[in-house]
Amino acid sequence: MGLETKNQIKTKKKYSEKRSSYDPISLLAIASPVKGCSVMTPLGTQFWEEVKEKIDTEHKRIGVKNVMLPLFIPMSVSKKVFTRRDFNKEFVVIKELPRRKKLSDFLVIRPTSEVLFSFVFSKLIHSYRDLPCLLNQWCNVVRWEKSNKVLLRANEFWWQEGHGVYDDQKKKEERELFAKIASMYRKILSDSFALSVKEGWKTKLETFSGAKKTYTFESLLPDGQTLQLATIHFLSSKFTSVYKTVFRDRHNNLRIPAQISWGLSTRLLGAMAKIHFTQKDRLVTPPFVSPTQLLILVISTDCDTKEKENEKGKCYFLSRKFFSLKELFRVQINHVKNLEHLLILKKRGLAEGVPVIFECRETKNECFESYITISSSGLKKSILPSQLTSLLIRKTILQIQQRLKIKQENVTKLNTHNFSSVDDLKKLLDENKVGFFKGVFCGKITCERSIRDAFGLASVLTSGKSFKSLFCFFCGSSPAKVSFFGRKY
Amino acid sequence: MGLETKNQIKTKKKYSEKRSSYDPISLLAIASPVKGCSVMTPLGTQFWEEVKEKIDTEHKRIGVKNVMLPLFIPMSVSKKVFTRRDFNKEFVVIKELPRRKKLSDFLVIRPTSEVLFSFVFSKLIHSYRDLPCLLNQWCNVVRWEKSNKVLLRANEFWWQEGHGVYDDQKKKEERELFAKIASMYRKILSDSFALSVKEGWKTKLETFSGAKKTYTFESLLPDGQTLQLATIHFLSSKFTSVYKTVFRDRHNNLRIPAQISWGLSTRLLGAMAKIHFTQKDRLVTPPFVSPTQLLILVISTDCDTKEKENEKGKCYFLSRKFFSLKELFRVQINHVKNLEHLLILKKRGLAEGVPVIFECRETKNECFESYITISSSGLKKSILPSQLTSLLIRKTILQIQQRLKIKQENVTKLNTHNFSSVDDLKKLLDENKVGFFKGVFCGKITCERSIRDAFGLASVLTSGKSFKSLFCFFCGSSPAKVSFFGRKY
Repeated sequence: MGLETKNQIKTKKKYSEKRSSYDPISLLAIASPVKGCSVMTPLGTQFWEEVKEKIDTEHKRIGVKNVMLPLFIPMSVSKKVFTRRDFNKEFVVIKELPRRKKLSDFLVIRPTSEVLFSFVFSKLIHSYRDLPCLLNQWCNVVRWEKSNKVLLRANEFWWQEGHGVYDDQKKKEERELFAKIASMYRKILSDSFALSVKEGWKTKLETFSGAKKTYTFESLLPDGQTLQLATIHFLSSKFTSVYKTVFRDRHNNLRIPAQISWGLSTRLLGAMAKIHFTQKDRLVTPPFVSPTQLLILVISTDCDTKEKENEKGKCYFLSRKFFSLKELFRVQINHVKNLEHLLILKKRGLAEGVPVIFECRETKNECFESYITISSSGLKKSILPSQLTSLLIRKTILQIQQRLKIKQENVTKLNTHNFSSVDDLKKLLDENKVGFFKGVFCGKITCERSIRDAFGLASVLTSGKSFKSLFCFFCGSSPAKVSFFGRKY
Repeated sequence: MGLETKNQIKTKKKYSEKRSSYDPISLLAIASPVKGCSVMTPLGTQFWEEVKEKIDTEHKRIGVKNVMLPLFIPMSVSKKVFTRRDFNKEFVVIKELPRRKKLSDFLVIRPTSEVLFSFVFSKLIHSYRDLPCLLNQWCNVVRWEKSNKVLLRANEFWWQEGHGVYDDQKKKEERELFAKIASMYRKILSDSFALSVKEGWKTKLETFSGAKKTYTFESLLPDGQTLQLATIHFLSSKFTSVYKTVFRDRHNNLRIPAQISWGLSTRLLGAMAKIHFTQKDRLVTPPFVSPTQLLILVISTDCDTKEKENEKGKCYFLSRKFFSLKELFRVQINHVKNLEHLLILKKRGLAEGVPVIFECRETKNECFESYITISSSGLKKSILPSQLTSLLIRKTILQIQQRLKIKQENVTKLNTHNFSSVDDLKKLLDENKVGFFKGVFCGKITCERSIRDAFGLASVLTSGKSFKSLFCFFCGSSPAKVSFFGRKY
């Protein structure tokens, strides 16, 4: 348990013995009656809609347009491109249609939609003027895995699947597009979700079977396993050639464009819940993406739920204040009749990870007694209602977000272990270290397999650049590159 | 061809002989390689996102929260509620999972999600305080039909599926909820999409197999067939009892809540394309929902695509104007180098149904030559650039929207035929009338089947209220209600 001190492990053990059933993910998604499939709760869906809005906005800037593609792909077409046995094993297949119509060409439920995007491109693209053509879809995909975990390893999940085709002779365009997409993911994962991610290239063995090169964003789970959160694939012309997607270039020659794809899934929400978890019975959510940033709970016999009535009531000034806060933040206001009801709503707010909770109670002498609670730390402080300003809320939200971010960066730093030789690595593993193991590696498939067998570690990502001056820690060959190993989720 | 005059039919025939391949739907969706499944183009997707935004906004007001539910439903559970043979015939079923795992309980790909919503409700609802609980999902559903038509009759389509549970003893709450949902659909169909819809209750024979009562919104296609665009179902406790969704009422008794559901699908976009079609090679789109309301095309050697450069250029004042229009409308601005390119973009704008197109060309003496084109009517008018004001655009958009609406209302009025006896109806059909046939009908299943056999007409909707003073035109029995018959798409 490398991500915690020994003392913490002890606490955690006791804790998990006491209430082993608590899982912060359960507030975002619930297992459905079908194995590996889940229901996204209203709260989980709100988070996903936040992700959607952020990515759609970035996509608009990059020039990506949304499309909606069908669920089924003919097996004959799918087989042309997916040749690796293990990926095909996850396909859910329809062999017979209603009214007992046996299919000669089975239908695969999309595990990913490269093939269909190529079909769309072949309809939309004619000349070099139509390039680059950048599309995206928000959809459900199905990959039947052996073991499942809600949101983290699901048989059906939701994702965003971006695909672009471009003239592969335009290397600058390719680089710029890649940089924009990578920057978008960096913003979402690191800035919005306050996660600490390492990014880099996959080795040959770990590259997506349809891709020439795969770029990945990886985070650490509390148990030290690495979790992939987003990827960008350079697909070359593997898929575009299947559907004969061609364009006429400036010299009127027919050419096949190159394809790039990028994706991020609802797994991100699982990562958020697991990674920011603080061993209290509650979600911890980064305020930048929390559907409710500020929960206001007011007890007052005069303050009814109807805002209009408040205008004449004693807490008129409070209502006005709340209204102005609503313009600036995602605020939920609840007027309650008594303390009991307030405490129920506060408990729910804390459980759902609302970052800031303001509670206010009118006392007999027409004064107010009020408190602000920071959900992630549990800190509760008495403040005057007049102190509840947009400045305070903005400052508090920023602080919480930064603290979560810094905490995760420290965890990753503490759990990134350098090694320069086989002995080094052995020693680290003997010390029960987990996390990222950083060393120099040649990237060869045979070497990677041997490392996996010897240490139980997989290559997570590499810097991508090989240097002649670097030598593989395992086989001693050169050139080699800086690489990170770990136990993959 | 009741929706057109004879002259129009002649024109249409000639027209369809000449370019029979043109279908305005093709700009919104393309048939995919799998029968009855389609790809929604970027334009089609933009329209659907417009629908989503409008419905999400209304839902928020009503108190409906979004969720995301899984694709697969266990057959055993589905069978408990869907007993009618014909609906089951449309189920696409998974009988075997990857790694040759035969399923004893098959999986149905959701044709609708009543069952799963009940499952969710059973997790979210405990006491009367949790009611009403109103949820919605945006998803794809699969119903395998014998014959297909892109967007109008698809094997896979996208829809919005709302579900609510409530205490069925609270009749006022039920009525209010129903009224709000019906008003939402009325706004979308009639105000936003400028369609003329008739609404009312389905007869027993036509009610959704899982529902106690079904409310429907129906429009007329240009060939006189009626097309269902949205429905609201009162499901009673049929589904909630399957998943044992219970709540404790104020007296601490366990009770089963009633369920209501409502849905609207991508078929709406097909209806828009077909119904507003004007026999030109273009889409006609109601400006209130057009993704681009105003297309601006400017030729000027000085006006580069980069807006910053314009600030110093001759068309600075134009750029400023365009910018202010962008704040108020959905505007797309294209700076082009020559007339040829302008005409290509204009043609595309017209084809895609952009309601208003403004083109502007700088002449030698630093003056501008500019035109405004109304896409639906083809009207092109010379105007001064200074006349391109937000007032003009607002007025024009309103006019186009109103004209489309009034036109459709007139078409529906002209194609609604009253009849009071069997002979009346026979006469109307002998005259080749199509559309809605309005008469008094008892609503009995046997009577409805006989009418279908005798006249080839189905009951489309009824007023819902029976009166003792009314007598069925077919069987003469009383009570009866005002009903509309037609040929269903």
